[in-house]
Amino acid sequence: MTDSKAPDSRARDLKAPDSTRRSERSRRAIYAAALDLVSENGYARTTVEGIASRAGVGKQTIYRWWPVNSKPAVLMEAFLDLAEQAAEAAGGSGESEIPDTGDLAADLKRVLRATVDELNDPVYDRPTRALAAEGIVDPELGAQFTARLLEPALQQYVRRIEAAQAAGDVDPSVDPRIALELLVGPLHHRWLHRTRPLTHAYADTLVDYALRGLGARP
Amino acid sequence: MTDSKAPDSRARDLKAPDSTRRSERSRRAIYAAALDLVSENGYARTTVEGIASRAGVGKQTIYRWWPVNSKPAVLMEAFLDLAEQAAEAAGGSGESEIPDTGDLAADLKRVLRATVDELNDPVYDRPTRALAAEGIVDPELGAQFTARLLEPALQQYVRRIEAAQAAGDVDPSVDPRIALELLVGPLHHRWLHRTRPLTHAYADTLVDYALRGLGARP
Repeated sequence: MTDSKAPDSRARDLKAPDSTRRSERSRRAIYAAALDLVSENGYARTTVEGIASRAGVGKQTIYRWWPVNSKPAVLMEAFLDLAEQAAEAAGGSGESEIPDTGDLAADLKRVLRATVDELNDPVYDRPTRALAAEGIVDPELGAQFTARLLEPALQQYVRRIEAAQAAGDVDPSVDPRIALELLVGPLHHRWLHRTRPLTHAYADTLVDYALRGLGARP
Repeated sequence: MTDSKAPDSRARDLKAPDSTRRSERSRRAIYAAALDLVSENGYARTTVEGIASRAGVGKQTIYRWWPVNSKPAVLMEAFLDLAEQAAEAAGGSGESEIPDTGDLAADLKRVLRATVDELNDPVYDRPTRALAAEGIVDPELGAQFTARLLEPALQQYVRRIEAAQAAGDVDPSVDPRIALELLVGPLHHRWLHRTRPLTHAYADTLVDYALRGLGARP
């Protein structure tokens, strides 16, 4: 491409500023309505019509913006947006890469504690449960959920653990993609099945137990 | 009690043998129908009427045997029965305590591999997903699921890890209730969200990574 502008910003330039602002407002209203309805009624009983009505837009707006698999497509974007906002609130950047201060345990505790706070926050907890529950019984939605939301988050752990291996802090023979599951798996299991409270102390203990097993050999 | 018979067998004696056999057949048919329907239609669309009809019994039979919260009560018992059958098939005893051969890693690998096989078996996978998904969004059902099905299974790991601590194979300062989550959490996470294949090799790696961190200090 010779045009240096991103497609996103070029598209915006084609519209009058007022129209852009209106679209942005509608988009935010649709995300909020989708998350509210899936929290209140579950995935199965959430409809495109219901989302449009709650957002105060015509349902044709939703079908125009998300023409294929409109309901899961809207919900998935609403979740991506929610995750970005949570990441921005936590760290300032929407990218939310796991920090590398050189202290792996401290860095992992920081990110797992933030995850605990997020999972304990009803704003995040309720719609995420609704989407996770549907993904568990609907393989197609589950595959989208995993590919677009879950796996990108897990890859941040992979990169941080690889950096720790390069720095000699983690045994180089360890598979980072499995190692991260020793941290994230227990946290999600406790959250989903509400077996015990999700606390910062629990997050810290998980990091301590997991890292002892993954430490670099002398 | 001066009567040495269990309440269960005394109740059976009050009925004619034919009636007992008929009841037992009906009970099994109800369990099977409940598991089939929840697999096919999900929890929300499974009804007592539907279970009775599929099982070939009157719905009053179900309401008489499970008078309180009939639908979740029937399903929970059907699951307990399924879990017992799976345990019997795997080990011969319905109790399914984790074996203690003195080799903790081997014992844990054996039980985690059996769990992998179970989760990969559609007979177990489909209804368990349906119940887990409903428990995730319905706190009351989720609490029952956790208390009656999940936590008793987790306590088997606690006892095996405590035995290993007593034998000097695991650091005595480790909390067994958290340690077990490093094994079970990743397995369930991978199963529920279908992130990667559930294999015996994966089960073995989890045990290896987790145990290295929990090993007794020299």
